[in-house]
Amino acid sequence: MSLLVIGTVAFDAIETPFGKTDKIVGGAATYASLAASYFFDKVKIVAVIGDDFPQSEIEDFGHHHIDTEGLQIKKGEKSFFWSGKYHNDMNSRDTLITELNVLADFDPIIPDSYQDCEFLMLGNLTPQVQQTVINRLKNRPKLIVMDTMNFWMDIALNDLLDTIKMIDVLTINDAEARQLSGEYSLVKAAQKILTMGPKYLIIKKGEHGALLFGEGKIFSAPALPLEEVFDPTGAGDTFAGGFIGYMAKVGEVSFQNMKNAIIYGSALASFCVEKFGTEKLRHLSAEEINDRVQQFVSLAQFEIL
Amino acid sequence: MSLLVIGTVAFDAIETPFGKTDKIVGGAATYASLAASYFFDKVKIVAVIGDDFPQSEIEDFGHHHIDTEGLQIKKGEKSFFWSGKYHNDMNSRDTLITELNVLADFDPIIPDSYQDCEFLMLGNLTPQVQQTVINRLKNRPKLIVMDTMNFWMDIALNDLLDTIKMIDVLTINDAEARQLSGEYSLVKAAQKILTMGPKYLIIKKGEHGALLFGEGKIFSAPALPLEEVFDPTGAGDTFAGGFIGYMAKVGEVSFQNMKNAIIYGSALASFCVEKFGTEKLRHLSAEEINDRVQQFVSLAQFEIL
Repeated sequence: MSLLVIGTVAFDAIETPFGKTDKIVGGAATYASLAASYFFDKVKIVAVIGDDFPQSEIEDFGHHHIDTEGLQIKKGEKSFFWSGKYHNDMNSRDTLITELNVLADFDPIIPDSYQDCEFLMLGNLTPQVQQTVINRLKNRPKLIVMDTMNFWMDIALNDLLDTIKMIDVLTINDAEARQLSGEYSLVKAAQKILTMGPKYLIIKKGEHGALLFGEGKIFSAPALPLEEVFDPTGAGDTFAGGFIGYMAKVGEVSFQNMKNAIIYGSALASFCVEKFGTEKLRHLSAEEINDRVQQFVSLAQFEIL
Repeated sequence: MSLLVIGTVAFDAIETPFGKTDKIVGGAATYASLAASYFFDKVKIVAVIGDDFPQSEIEDFGHHHIDTEGLQIKKGEKSFFWSGKYHNDMNSRDTLITELNVLADFDPIIPDSYQDCEFLMLGNLTPQVQQTVINRLKNRPKLIVMDTMNFWMDIALNDLLDTIKMIDVLTINDAEARQLSGEYSLVKAAQKILTMGPKYLIIKKGEHGALLFGEGKIFSAPALPLEEVFDPTGAGDTFAGGFIGYMAKVGEVSFQNMKNAIIYGSALASFCVEKFGTEKLRHLSAEEINDRVQQFVSLAQFEIL
């Protein structure tokens, strides 16, 4: 039984009001698999990189017990590269550079040893590639979580609609939920999206937390109020990875377990934004994570007598 | 022991994407006192109206056991009138008309029978008038809650800063917290504002809920996700009134009680926005309120094992 994460493994160059980085390791699959690895020890990734990607970084996945057999290395090609600059409010950013490189013709090959996948995280990629992964798994996973973004709603809506028919949990932000549904009210947006295929919808609201819809219920998770967001890059992927990692750990798919999975995912995301890139995500202790989760408990709990 | 509410009692004309009203009864003190009356039966108001204000509306305060001895009626003058139009997203609005009328020279006279005030709600008004009310109370109330808005930060900042030195709980929205503190991070904003006088700060985030800061702690309350917001007018005043009404009911000022007061205030506000003006707030049953509060419990509760 394993957790398969598909997505980008890539280079980012990030500029925030607090500083800027050279090319550092990023990508949805990197953040999501690192986050998941704190809860579950059979995380496997499918992704594509060029031969410019440092061997030491590949080895670092191994240090987190992340299986990289499905990580394709294209000789003579370059890894996907994204560069962006955050505005002062950290809620919006400009993309400065996008070089698809190896991603342009990514064919997601699933190693035989990955066919025991029961939990599948489809990180943000073209919906066509996400769908191919589902089709190549011989057994339908117990839980398929898919992340996507407005970009695919703009240029590949039909593929996106076809793909979300096949999944269990869709994670998007509030603006994307409004775009996908054509409804401003998030309750109405969720009702509409839940008729499109997914059984559960998670609406990510950044500093305002997250909403989970499904089984006729709603759960509202807080975000941890932070003194400083240093670099928001990867927070959504980290959230999704923590979410599915926790679900794989507990094993049983239920609304109740998803509520806790959202809290654990949010806790991981709150670490992610404290430093540039994946830096903070590389060396967390179980104690740090539990302390952070307890902060969420204190933050949100109240008792009506 | 009583709860004193000061603020406007006025006329509003409201236009939303769902329709428009003629002049209907509104005003911060109207919403706040109605909301408080569901928790506490000794609510008293200080406000000023013209003789254009219908007697039946004054009697309706009585039906909610709201004492109107402090409601000044100015012969031959007109009540404060505001008219506004909400945009399609309901999060922003344009003011069409503001006629101060009786409010222009409002002198808040406190009847002797109001001197037993232990809980004071300073609804949104000029900070100078809010301060006068505090000064005219012979005994300092046990809890002073003050609502204000960006308008006073723009035109009467010094008066505002003088007044918030004298209060216990300040309620403002997130944009106002940022404006007042000059800090973008709400955690830093709260830290700064809590050095300006108030012991507690409530940041209202509309559809994203509310944050309570104080005693070195933070509480994050969800907002109830609604299918439709029909008319947001008065939601903040209703929240504040429900908050202080619940505090007056329980009597003891503590962070713990304030958390519940925020949930009760949020529940009342969630009713308020379901119809135009005060309509929905006039005939709530205890059962409806308790059911709504239970929805908040279901929405927010999770259990980390």
